Amino acid sequence: MQAGKPILYSYFRSSCSWRVRIALALKNIDYEMITINLIKDGGQQLAIIEYLEETRPTPRLLPQDPKKRAHVRMISDLIASGIQPLQNLSVLNQVGQENQLTWAQQVIASGFNALEQVLQSTAGKCCVGDEVSMADLCLVPQVANADRYKVDLSPYPTISRINKSLLALEAFQVSHPSRQPDTPPELRA
Amino acid sequence: MQAGKPILYSYFRSSCSWRVRIALALKNIDYEMITINLIKDGGQQLAIIEYLEETRPTPRLLPQDPKKRAHVRMISDLIASGIQPLQNLSVLNQVGQENQLTWAQQVIASGFNALEQVLQSTAGKCCVGDEVSMADLCLVPQVANADRYKVDLSPYPTISRINKSLLALEAFQVSHPSRQPDTPPELRA
Repeated sequence: MQAGKPILYSYFRSSCSWRVRIALALKNIDYEMITINLIKDGGQQLAIIEYLEETRPTPRLLPQDPKKRAHVRMISDLIASGIQPLQNLSVLNQVGQENQLTWAQQVIASGFNALEQVLQSTAGKCCVGDEVSMADLCLVPQVANADRYKVDLSPYPTISRINKSLLALEAFQVSHPSRQPDTPPELRA
Repeated sequence: MQAGKPILYSYFRSSCSWRVRIALALKNIDYEMITINLIKDGGQQLAIIEYLEETRPTPRLLPQDPKKRAHVRMISDLIASGIQPLQNLSVLNQVGQENQLTWAQQVIASGFNALEQVLQSTAGKCCVGDEVSMADLCLVPQVANADRYKVDLSPYPTISRINKSLLALEAFQVSHPSRQPDTPPELRA
């Protein structure tokens, strides 16, 4: 990866792919994208983001202060391990079609209850203070999933506020699922 | 945490707590334990381990080489986001009692299939080469969960071999669920 142009295997709708696309956009890294229709879900893309952070440290996606870094990682893990894996495609298939929507709404709402509470003590304009971090890369794709499963966001004013202000940033827009090479025409922005 | 003695809120059986107990033992950090009966599951304890790594870097739980670090994080995330959250207590409750065992076996086996394949190209004595890393802290508690749910481990020779050699180490033994202050008498080693 340090040698040639990095290749991202991406699926337009995957929240895990989107996290990485945001990181690449923020760090202004030129990359090739290979779109794949089925993706191996899970939070493994955080390993890619940590790798990018170590090899291309500017702009930083982790604060310098160890306590703030821990906050960023706690929020990222809450989303990437505590919410996303419970509502990904393979789990929903296992749950059975008639239960999918209720299941997804339940795990997202339960995760967002915890997240809203954490954010109330860490957030500024972003999840931790006013600088965009790894936590924000996790937040926005997860809120998009919540939208998709029609989760009522009114109990989560902090989540909603941060999400809205992040979506105004270029890196979050170019990486958006509605603007990817494999986005079907009916879902294009 | 840098000031006083750190406090770990721990549950003897939780694989997430166990990961942190191994890290604390490896880094020889003296801490107080407060045992709690119900734990908020998820992979959030990786944030604690990253924090320990940054504030107490010796011995390292992440290799120095960025590629190897990425391997360690990929394996850790595969376990902490890809397997553990799908078989934790709250999910099993939601699945319903009669389906719990099948569900747990299925998600663990499917995760171990991926993990075994990754390990075949990264492992030495440990998950990545011969040095104990964050990935090993994730592996051993997850294999214990697999045992608990009676997953057949014969298709996973690499996982089994590494697990066995790690369990011989002091840090993995003192942190074991069978030796915690809140371990019930019938489960004590």
